[in-house]
Amino acid sequence: MTDPARNLIEALSQVHDLWSAHRVVSVNDYDVKVVKVQGEFVWHTHPETDELFLVMSGRLTIQLRDGDVELGPNDVYVVPRGVEHCPRADEETHVVLVEPRGTVNTGDAGGDRTVEVRELA
Amino acid sequence: MTDPARNLIEALSQVHDLWSAHRVVSVNDYDVKVVKVQGEFVWHTHPETDELFLVMSGRLTIQLRDGDVELGPNDVYVVPRGVEHCPRADEETHVVLVEPRGTVNTGDAGGDRTVEVRELA
Repeated sequence: MTDPARNLIEALSQVHDLWSAHRVVSVNDYDVKVVKVQGEFVWHTHPETDELFLVMSGRLTIQLRDGDVELGPNDVYVVPRGVEHCPRADEETHVVLVEPRGTVNTGDAGGDRTVEVRELA
Repeated sequence: MTDPARNLIEALSQVHDLWSAHRVVSVNDYDVKVVKVQGEFVWHTHPETDELFLVMSGRLTIQLRDGDVELGPNDVYVVPRGVEHCPRADEETHVVLVEPRGTVNTGDAGGDRTVEVRELA
């Protein structure tokens, strides 16, 4: 029996908390996760890895110390490892993340916005 | 100066050959590529890596030896390493691939369908 494909929109419909990434599939040791965001996150860095953002719906601003990157639907951006960033969304925005398993959402900043990646039911 | 985001639909609009993957961005040593497909590819295996397919438009059938996986828009499927597969699309279908840099499109099969990954202009 072959596993069926997973739909990213359907996966997002199962996510009810903001800023809580849920794993959909993995490619080797990289996770593909979906997350709903609104408001501003925290400034942080992933010293050991790049981080890919793909917007499915809404608008995402990735604030960087030398300027903002604006993403709309089907826009993709990779924050290079070691680059400080702070995502922000004025409206509820649905995002796909691709990064190595074990990447912590708050990177080196830690704090109370840190949450574990969850599995979709 | 910050690089802008890349749009996957716009990237696909720059692809004019079928079955020719074009790199859009990279995450560490993984490439995110876009490819237009129609017709049937060749049966092959990637012994060393999983391979992620995400359909942007159209319909993709990933034939496996124990059954087909059907993908429509926003559907994602990961062919595990070592699993023989043969993609097929009855209509022109636009796909995003995520896999390690250097992954050969025809895997262990080789042959005249083998092409290098291209860079978008």
